[in-house]
Order: sequence, then structure tokens, then C-alpha cells
Amino acid sequence: MHEAAAILLALFVIFVAAQVGAEIAQRLKLPGVVGEIVAGCVIGPSALGWIKVEDIATGTPLDVLAEIGVVLLLFAVGLETRLDDLKKVGRTAFLVGVLGVIVPFVLGVLWAHGNGFVWTKSLFVAAAFVATSAGITARVLQELNALQRIESRVILGAAVIDDILAMLLLGVVTSLQGGGGVQLGSLVFVLLQAVAFVAIIGWVGTSVMRRQGHWIERPVNPLSALSITLAICLGLAFLSTEFGLAAIIGAFLAGMIASETRNREQLEHQTRPLLAFLTPFFFVITGAKIDVHVFADASALWMLLVVTVIAVVAKLVGGFLGALSLGRRGATIVGVGMVPRGEVGVVIASLGLVGGVFSDRTYAVIVAMSLLTSVITPPVLAVLMKRDASRPEPA
Amino acid sequence: MHEAAAILLALFVIFVAAQVGAEIAQRLKLPGVVGEIVAGCVIGPSALGWIKVEDIATGTPLDVLAEIGVVLLLFAVGLETRLDDLKKVGRTAFLVGVLGVIVPFVLGVLWAHGNGFVWTKSLFVAAAFVATSAGITARVLQELNALQRIESRVILGAAVIDDILAMLLLGVVTSLQGGGGVQLGSLVFVLLQAVAFVAIIGWVGTSVMRRQGHWIERPVNPLSALSITLAICLGLAFLSTEFGLAAIIGAFLAGMIASETRNREQLEHQTRPLLAFLTPFFFVITGAKIDVHVFADASALWMLLVVTVIAVVAKLVGGFLGALSLGRRGATIVGVGMVPRGEVGVVIASLGLVGGVFSDRTYAVIVAMSLLTSVITPPVLAVLMKRDASRPEPA
Repeated sequence: MHEAAAILLALFVIFVAAQVGAEIAQRLKLPGVVGEIVAGCVIGPSALGWIKVEDIATGTPLDVLAEIGVVLLLFAVGLETRLDDLKKVGRTAFLVGVLGVIVPFVLGVLWAHGNGFVWTKSLFVAAAFVATSAGITARVLQELNALQRIESRVILGAAVIDDILAMLLLGVVTSLQGGGGVQLGSLVFVLLQAVAFVAIIGWVGTSVMRRQGHWIERPVNPLSALSITLAICLGLAFLSTEFGLAAIIGAFLAGMIASETRNREQLEHQTRPLLAFLTPFFFVITGAKIDVHVFADASALWMLLVVTVIAVVAKLVGGFLGALSLGRRGATIVGVGMVPRGEVGVVIASLGLVGGVFSDRTYAVIVAMSLLTSVITPPVLAVLMKRDASRPEPA
Repeated sequence: MHEAAAILLALFVIFVAAQVGAEIAQRLKLPGVVGEIVAGCVIGPSALGWIKVEDIATGTPLDVLAEIGVVLLLFAVGLETRLDDLKKVGRTAFLVGVLGVIVPFVLGVLWAHGNGFVWTKSLFVAAAFVATSAGITARVLQELNALQRIESRVILGAAVIDDILAMLLLGVVTSLQGGGGVQLGSLVFVLLQAVAFVAIIGWVGTSVMRRQGHWIERPVNPLSALSITLAICLGLAFLSTEFGLAAIIGAFLAGMIASETRNREQLEHQTRPLLAFLTPFFFVITGAKIDVHVFADASALWMLLVVTVIAVVAKLVGGFLGALSLGRRGATIVGVGMVPRGEVGVVIASLGLVGGVFSDRTYAVIVAMSLLTSVITPPVLAVLMKRDASRPEPA
């Protein structure tokens, strides 16, 4: 088949699978995103094989489309987030971010060392337990129209802090693999750089927009505000990878900056068709990366179960403790919202595989754990959010 | 640089270049698309080199994004085209399509043979003179809000016929290169297949939508009509490549089908942000494929000039003669609208290079011709359209 035809067929299959999956999930009262991930798993290389492994490897067109999809998703989430609202929950978000990293990391190290990994490798395994994927939770919160809730703001704020810490941790454990010591000075520098990036873009960007935002509202054509903010989104997504952060953090900041302009509502409206077209690629391909064959081997299945339980409990406890100031129900929602590891865990696992730290089995288990947390979180979060919404607000 | 970072940077650079180019073009009273193509040429491999040759090769992520961009563009153009309107201009469009293929093909063969190509190779060279790229003209017509004019409908109808004939011609000349004769039976089969595809999708699709279109209007969520029609768009784009036609023909048909539903205006509205984000990639990358070094060699420059003049005049004459029933002014607009060869000429040139039919220089000249016709057409078309709009309608 001609190359252009093959890619069009893949786009069609993925897009239709996403729609069918989302439709079925919604009829089962589950968030649509669960259906999209499961659909990806079903049509993926390890099940039906309608998508091939080589078609979704890093840097392939489908992988890039998926990346663009999640970048736009976090941009849209940023659009619904005001810096002032985020500041109000700053202290809680910081605690959630820090505890949500420490607890899974410590538990991860203990489990890995207890299972025969040497200390340096155990640290690497534990790093894969740490990073929350904001994309999954953000999509669920958006589907539930819950982005304005205080728990949502804590989760999004904590995801930024989480990402900074996870990036730092990865730097530490990677340099430890080389056998060399950790250079405290360079680590502090990396940390300061990342914090400075987020702070400068967040604070300065939003205040510039508040005062000078009128220049993106020129009447050349009604889409120019969208084009300018999308350019900012792509630019900041790139810049944040240069500062060692996930691209979605930059996209989130870009959305937050754009939300300070008078075009906010118009931009939200215009972003929706973009999300409808592009985010399904992210979720289906995330699902397609799940290797169902792992489940065929009982010992690997057991390992997966243990790892997943540890990963879920650790993040839940960390997030819960950090968010206790919101009350127990709010803290539970925050804890659950921080559970999905999604593609971040997958990326760390890939680094471990390429660097020879992980065996194929450890890799498969950690990838499956990352994706399993992404599949089980959305329905739980949806139930908690809805139950909570139907109760009276605490006094 | 990490791969994800590199692609985000490329997306950012291309997107910003498109905005800057379109802005400058519009201030110079030129269609924005000219600015986007020129911007691509400037940042492309042969000038500034901000985009590398290997980044825009067939099947790379950027190339696929460009393809998606032009597919969505023709989908949007289809949305603004009713089958009934197209039927009214059917005879004229057919004449324009047929003459617009015959005249450039005959002139192309004569020129190539006169320049020392053997007959079989001359036929191949001439095939590259034939196919109109509907994307460029469609974008200009859209920018001018002129898609409802009779000339626009003739051009779009003729582009479908043009594509069928060009595909057929390419089949003939390719099989001639092998030294074997042409099998009339299989050619007739290929032709019938393509015609049947367009006819069945066009006629049956639209009538099904008219009667059964309500099922895409279910109230599950306001974007589901968009999702369903986008799925149809991707599916038909793929199918049309399977029938040997350009993907954009299928996308155009999908848009035309969707325009029969009650969601038409809503879909047009929702498609705009998708176009704003994705079509710039198509036009910038089209421009980036222009190799400006060809212009450094006087003899190649001369050859380019001659080839371009032949290509322009031939299509202009063919289109003009076919559309004479619209009056001289209308026929001129149609003739000019058929001039851009765009990516179709580039594709045929690539086939010739890979098959050993063309030298590097012939390849470069034909690619440059294809793209040159795409750059010079939009401003001329804009001037003709505007001048014509300010005159009274003929009685």
C-alpha cells in the first residue's frame, strides 16, 4: 500500500475506534477517555494488531499527532485555569506535589530493593512510580465540567510541581546509574532553571497579557487570536522540554496566559473542535502501547498487580495527606486524581530499557502499570466527583 | 536535541512562519496563502535551512501533518459545495477538466520531445504538466469568500474530473516506461473504477445523508456530528487513494455529503479552527520543497521559465476553452483557477526521479514549475475575482 494511503487508513481506524470506544464507555456511565484507551488496547499491536508497533514508536507521525493532541488538551485546560485561582491553592498544591512524589518514591525503592534490584537500579525503578500524567486526569475533569472545583485546581497545580520534582529525580537517578556521584551544584541549577521557567512564564506572562493582551485582538480575522495563542502554545511546549519539563506543562502555561485575555471564551469555543479531532489520537495510542501478553504469564501478572497496587496506594496516600486541608472527601479526590502515570511512566520505563537498567519484563510491567493506573482512575474519579457534587457543601 | 523537542520546535517555527508570511501578504493585498508558501520557501532547506530536507520527506510527521491539513481544507471546501450546484455546471466542468488535461499534455509532449526526450519519456514529462492541485485554488476562493460563484463551482467540478484523467494518464505513461504496451482493458477498468467511486460516493452519499442525516445529529454531545463527519472524511480520503485518486478528492466528497445535513453551518463553523491550525503546515511545507538553487544556473532557469510558461498557457487555454459558455471573463477566471499544479506535479516528478525517467535537473525544474504556478496563481485570481465582483452581472 502507498505510504500516504497507509497513514490515512491508520488515522481513520484510530479515529473511529476512539469514537466507538467513547460511545460505549459513556453508555456504561464511564468517562469517554476510558473507552478511548481501551479501544486503543483492543486495536493495538498486542491484540487485534490493526496498529503496528513500528507505527506508534517515538517520532512516528502517529506518535507526533498524539503528542500534539495532548499538548492541545493541556492548552485547553490551561484556558480554563486562572493564575489567581491557582495561587489560592498554592500551598495545598505544593504539599500534594511534594508528598505525591516522596511517598511513591520511597515505597518504590523499598519494593524494588526487596525484589532483588541493587540500590542504584531500585532508585531508577522508583522514579517510574513518581510522575503523574496530568493529561488523563485533566480530560476526566473536563468531561465532568469540574475544572473550576477547588480539587481540580489543586490537582493541576500539584501536577506542575510533581513534574518539576520528577524531572529532578530522574536527573539524579540517571547520573547514579553511571556510577558517578551526584553533583549537587548542577542539580540545584537544574531545579532553579525549571522553577524559574514556570514562575517567569506563569507570573510575567499572565501580567503582560492582562495589560497588553489587546494586541492579539486585532480585527484582521476572527481566527488570529487563536493562531497567536496556538503559536505561543507550541513555543512554550518546546521551551518547557528545553528546561527538562514535559511539553504539556508549557502548553498548560500557554493556556493559562491566554485565559487572561478578553478572547478567553472565544478561544475555549474554538479549541473544542481541535480537541475533538486530535486528542483521540493521544488516548488511543496510549492504550495501544499496553502489551496484553504480559497478562499471559502468571508471575508477571502477579508482579504487575503488586506494582500497580503500590503505585496507586502510594500516590493516593501522598496526595491525600497533602490535601488534608480540603477535608477528607476533597483530599480523596485529589489523591485519586494524582494516580494516573500515563505516558510519563512509559517514558521513564523506556529510558530504563534503553539504558539497560530494566529487563524486558520489568519494562513491560512498569508500562502496563502506568497505563493501568490511567484506565482505572477515570471511572473512580467520576464516581467520587459526582457523589460529592450531589452532597451539600461542607460549612 | 530530544526528538519530541525537535518536532515541537519545527511545529512552532512553521506555524509562526505561516502567520508572519500570511500577515505580510495580506498587508501587500495578496492572498495569505502566497505568504505562507513564500515563508516556507524562505525557511526551507534551500534558503535559511530552518526546515531540513529529511524533515519534510514523504511519510515524516511534518509531511503527514501537511497531508491532514490539505485533506481538512478540501473537506471544508466540500462543506460549502452542494451536489445540486455542482450538477448545474456539470457539462462545463467536464469540458474544462478534459480540455485542461488534453492541451497541457499535448504541449508538454511536444516540448519534451523537442528537447531531446525520447517519446516514452516525453509522455511522462507531459503527465507532470497535467494535474491541477485543487488545494491552492480552493484556499484562494475561500479567502475571497467566492466559493458560491459559478466559476468556483466549475473549477471544483473540473478538478475532480482532472484528477481522474491525470490518474489514468499516469497509469498509461508508467506502463509505457516498462517498454510493454498499454492494456486497454485494464485502463478502461481503472477509469470505470474511479468514475464509479466518485459517482457512488457523490450521488448515493448525498441522497442517503438527505434522508438519513438525522442520525448524526444525536444529542450525545455537540461535537459528535463533527466527529462522525471527520471520520467519514478520513475514511473517504483513504478510499479515494485506493481507487488511485488523490486523498483530497475523497475529503471533498465527504464535505459535500456532510453539507446535505442540517448541521452544515455548525460544521463549517467548527472546521475553521481546525483549518487555522493545520492548513499552514501544508502551505509552508509546499513552499519549503522549492529548491531555490535551481535559479542559480542560467540554463536551468531558462528551462524553468519556458516550462512554466508552457504549463501556465496550456492550462489557461484548456480551461478557457472549456468554460467559454461562462463568457470570456468567467472563462478566464476558470482558466487561471486551474493553473496551480502544486503537490500533484511534485508527486509525478518524484515518481519520474525514482523511476529513473528524469534527471535531477528535470526533476528540480518540474518541481519548481509546479510550485511556481502555485505561487503566481493566487494573486492573479484574487485580482480577477475582485475586478469581476465590482462589475455588473452580465445579462
